[in-house]
Amino acid sequence: MFAINDVPHTRLNLLTGERVLVSPHRSKRPWQGQVEDLAPDNRPEYDPKCYLCPGNGRADGDQNPKYTEPFVFVNDFSALLKDSPDGQINVDNLLIAETERGICKVIAFSPRHDLTLPEMSIADLKLVVEVWKSEFQELAAIPWINYIQIFENKGAIMGCSNPHPHGQIWAQNTLPVEIEKEDQQQKIYFYKHGKSILSDYLDTELREKTRVIIDNEHFVALVPFWAAWPYETMIISKRQITNIAEFTEEECEDLAKTLKELTTRYDNIFNTSFPYSAGMHQAPVNLGEQAHWHWHMHFYPPLLRSATVKKFMVGYEMLANPQRDITAEMAAETIRNQSTIHYKEGAN
Amino acid sequence: MFAINDVPHTRLNLLTGERVLVSPHRSKRPWQGQVEDLAPDNRPEYDPKCYLCPGNGRADGDQNPKYTEPFVFVNDFSALLKDSPDGQINVDNLLIAETERGICKVIAFSPRHDLTLPEMSIADLKLVVEVWKSEFQELAAIPWINYIQIFENKGAIMGCSNPHPHGQIWAQNTLPVEIEKEDQQQKIYFYKHGKSILSDYLDTELREKTRVIIDNEHFVALVPFWAAWPYETMIISKRQITNIAEFTEEECEDLAKTLKELTTRYDNIFNTSFPYSAGMHQAPVNLGEQAHWHWHMHFYPPLLRSATVKKFMVGYEMLANPQRDITAEMAAETIRNQSTIHYKEGAN
Ligand SMILES: O=P(O)(O)O[C@H]1O[C@H](CO)[C@@H](O)[C@H](O)[C@H]1O
Ligand SMILES: O=P(O)(O)O[C@H]1O[C@H](CO)[C@@H](O)[C@H](O)[C@H]1O
Repeated sequence: MFAINDVPHTRLNLLTGERVLVSPHRSKRPWQGQVEDLAPDNRPEYDPKCYLCPGNGRADGDQNPKYTEPFVFVNDFSALLKDSPDGQINVDNLLIAETERGICKVIAFSPRHDLTLPEMSIADLKLVVEVWKSEFQELAAIPWINYIQIFENKGAIMGCSNPHPHGQIWAQNTLPVEIEKEDQQQKIYFYKHGKSILSDYLDTELREKTRVIIDNEHFVALVPFWAAWPYETMIISKRQITNIAEFTEEECEDLAKTLKELTTRYDNIFNTSFPYSAGMHQAPVNLGEQAHWHWHMHFYPPLLRSATVKKFMVGYEMLANPQRDITAEMAAETIRNQSTIHYKEGAN
Repeated sequence: MFAINDVPHTRLNLLTGERVLVSPHRSKRPWQGQVEDLAPDNRPEYDPKCYLCPGNGRADGDQNPKYTEPFVFVNDFSALLKDSPDGQINVDNLLIAETERGICKVIAFSPRHDLTLPEMSIADLKLVVEVWKSEFQELAAIPWINYIQIFENKGAIMGCSNPHPHGQIWAQNTLPVEIEKEDQQQKIYFYKHGKSILSDYLDTELREKTRVIIDNEHFVALVPFWAAWPYETMIISKRQITNIAEFTEEECEDLAKTLKELTTRYDNIFNTSFPYSAGMHQAPVNLGEQAHWHWHMHFYPPLLRSATVKKFMVGYEMLANPQRDITAEMAAETIRNQSTIHYKEGAN
């Protein structure tokens, strides 16, 4: 044992097998570096220039329908294409490349330009979860698709180029590197213990309680012991579900509630629309038995000290090892201390 | 084979064993997202408020000497500490942590507040290389140190909190995750082929030429085939040197020249002080035989489209796989097309 809130240490990420460096004593460091612009918080319900608003035109010339529920379309600037030809390059066994096929979609979460997830009703969030589920099912039915990444980049600081609430799905024919790692780690544990690693991890976290933020009927939201980003969290399903297609109606509703509460707490930390990249990790598709997978969703928010000062994952982190200053336990306490009523509704 | 400039594909990173997704067709995408502030380009030679300038006071109360050559001191806000006690945590084999010991240093590259590496003379850059070498030797002489990361965060966008030209060294008692990966990959290749993987890779690149930027007596600078950041480059020593302590006087001088030319070309791309995180990867120390290691230096610059629009490694990239739009070959051509005379001296 050692004083976890004082001494620099590393923690093991069970899902990747990699470590994170934690420097708790360092949070007192003054900051003279880059300060971000605050996102303006007064968007109209409808923006005639937004390519995601109902009825507006898009880059490829298409026109959005006057949708009233979540609306999905193929990304006009897809990074992956459905019709890429098969092909390999191999020069001296040193320059190795292979074509990749895929489909990239965009989901407008709401027709309202001015909302974000925490500001939507649970009923409307449930519609989003149901669209994620049906899109997953539809993409998984394509035999050459092997992995489906559902995610959201929120906030300009996270590369989001349009504030209209939306997420993305990238589906492709091989397993991305982060999925390969989680696949390996989960497989090793499952075939040794006969249970998913996240089931056992949940038991430990629910007993320790220090990192748990939300614990409802079907989901737990917590700051993982090995979190790298300051306010990183994970939502884990209590039942060992391998992918979202297995969600019951009740689980869809409960995930909607969990999302609303977690993102509301996030916004309340700095009374700002809290930026993040978030996304689900779930079992590969069309690759046989995936009993070792356990559905979960990661939130990677960059803010550290205030609404305008983020954590920089740069030199040491890029070249050597992810590093954080505040501990996972401190972060969990801060998130737990927030109101579940959004600050715009007068909670803070 | 396939059309590498048209078709989405993945490329294998020989040093990590991981792949990068390349989407060449996507570079036409318009950008409506975050635009960075331009760094002001009119710093004084001496700033009385800068904690790195000669003679000024620092956070811990120390006063800098009136140094005229590169100046090194222990970071006042070190992420790693020399005297961390030994300690482990293991809860249910699921929460696993261990204390980490280390030393963090800062190197002011020059007494001049207003310079950056490309604006320094080759003679002054050689002094920097020699300090890197002597610091490495000094830290490697401490028996419990096992890895030494020499790096520079340049530019506010890369989390650099002081524009005075400086870099850092973090030395520690275990191998960081990126080093573990490179160690593995290099080891496998070396014991199979009797040569370092980067020696063979260099031969292939010097034959293909499309990704090579600088080729002088002792070093090659190139855009690696598997580059993830838009203008990512690597400097590789021609001789298979395992660490900087083995550099000859001539190699120190040649690295100084290579650094000057590469960073000048970078600045000339957008006529701006080009931000990046850069650092050397070299053999672990005090861990026995390291014959498989081959010294190299990575440059990870974030800019993509202009001096103010960067590549965002966010949702898909964080959750699934690094992704880039322009190909390594396009990037190399752009860097090669730049003048070797700095734009401030009237080259562009
Ligand atoms: O040590 P500095 O320059 O204050 O801090 C900078 O570099 C460190 C090492 O890459 C990072 O951990 C910090 O996030 C970054 O802001
Ligand atoms: O697709 P978007 O929203 O235009 O782009 C954003 O998300 C992508 C997926 O994470 C990234 O590749 C881009 O760098 C980012 O700006």
